[in-house]
Amino acid sequence: MSGAALTADAFLGGRLTVRQPARGFRAGVDAVMLAAAVPARSGDTVLELGCGVGTASLCLARRVAGLDLTGIEREADYATLARENAAGNAIGMSIFTADLSRLPDPVRVQSFDHVIANPPYYVPDTRTGAADAGREAALAEDTDLRTWIDVATRRLAPGGWLTLIQRADRLRDVLAACDDRLGALEVLPLAPRHGRAARLVLLRARKGGRSPMVLHAPVVLHEGDRHERDGESYAAEIAGVLRDALPMPWPGR
Amino acid sequence: MSGAALTADAFLGGRLTVRQPARGFRAGVDAVMLAAAVPARSGDTVLELGCGVGTASLCLARRVAGLDLTGIEREADYATLARENAAGNAIGMSIFTADLSRLPDPVRVQSFDHVIANPPYYVPDTRTGAADAGREAALAEDTDLRTWIDVATRRLAPGGWLTLIQRADRLRDVLAACDDRLGALEVLPLAPRHGRAARLVLLRARKGGRSPMVLHAPVVLHEGDRHERDGESYAAEIAGVLRDALPMPWPGR
Repeated sequence: MSGAALTADAFLGGRLTVRQPARGFRAGVDAVMLAAAVPARSGDTVLELGCGVGTASLCLARRVAGLDLTGIEREADYATLARENAAGNAIGMSIFTADLSRLPDPVRVQSFDHVIANPPYYVPDTRTGAADAGREAALAEDTDLRTWIDVATRRLAPGGWLTLIQRADRLRDVLAACDDRLGALEVLPLAPRHGRAARLVLLRARKGGRSPMVLHAPVVLHEGDRHERDGESYAAEIAGVLRDALPMPWPGR
Repeated sequence: MSGAALTADAFLGGRLTVRQPARGFRAGVDAVMLAAAVPARSGDTVLELGCGVGTASLCLARRVAGLDLTGIEREADYATLARENAAGNAIGMSIFTADLSRLPDPVRVQSFDHVIANPPYYVPDTRTGAADAGREAALAEDTDLRTWIDVATRRLAPGGWLTLIQRADRLRDVLAACDDRLGALEVLPLAPRHGRAARLVLLRARKGGRSPMVLHAPVVLHEGDRHERDGESYAAEIAGVLRDALPMPWPGR
């Protein structure tokens, strides 16, 4: 990636600027929504698995002050950008270049109040083959969901929260990967329009939780029934998440 | 159950009358919604696992003519009532008294276009202890979901459809029990009111299906935001299902 073109992208209505490769995997709305869904309070410790250029954790830091942030990213170039993005936004965050399955000692000995992740969405597809290796790595499921969720669960403190965002068509895999160490599962479907199937799901779970699973009513991202070409028809609640750093509206259990 | 009081209950706006014990596990709205969700066409073979007094299969027969219906019920008294209910409504249905894990030969050698089930909702709870053994057996999860779905999957013809209804708080268990033999999963949440968490889910899956899972927008059972005491505020679509034997409104993929 050295010498690759970068863009500087504004998030949260300009409260955060993130530099990332112009090509390859690019952070966007999903990372912002993940950050908005984390029930963190000032003073909490937060571990992001696969933090990329840091977008989700940095968005979370903008909404909740006083967090202790740690990120793990396998791709060294992304990890470097994450460190630069944290510094550039004056946010403290420890970022380790490491594979999920080989966490560095400082992370492996710690428990966290929150673990967050936006695991890769796509399984490797030999038909199309992403042109860019960074994108390929981020999208490929070469570390499968079960590993992501297992590593997250191990690193959670008792009562700690896991927050994930994932494609709705992988909900089976996500839920199957949540074993009995996790409980109090809540699934919040994210639907593009009213009455449409969910495209994404947000998952919350607690280590050692015992409450029954809840399948919430969907949050609808866009107003109106038609697809708007300009993509700017966000529902008011979601516009608040994306532009005003508000928390994701999360229903009561 | 011999000599136990029975009631004769009208379903589908009086199109079907089902005799069942006055006490213990009683079929109701859930069985009717399950039947309404089965994508069966005339001439199809249908196996119901745990058919109780036959309500779901008999409702299905009222909506779709010319089905070849088979039911399995472990409790002999319920199986007897199911046979009587089929005869009393002039519907042909073969009902076997058998445990799921020991299907009778005529069933074990056959494949079905559809397998349907309303597996027990509750795990055994030693705190409350159901007063009636029939209810206890129906509600207890002494045969776990994994077995229900495994037996169903084995009995499906290639391309055959599984249709289940289950509590939403068991969606993790339901999805985890669907292994790679099943695909094209569709989850239809059933919410009591607009904006409320789902109470039940309908699941469709196809044996050998390859389409991605779909998490549909919820179907809302009751109109209005408040809880109506009389319980008669069904949304028009659901009233059509319950009273007019219409199919469950099922969104496209």
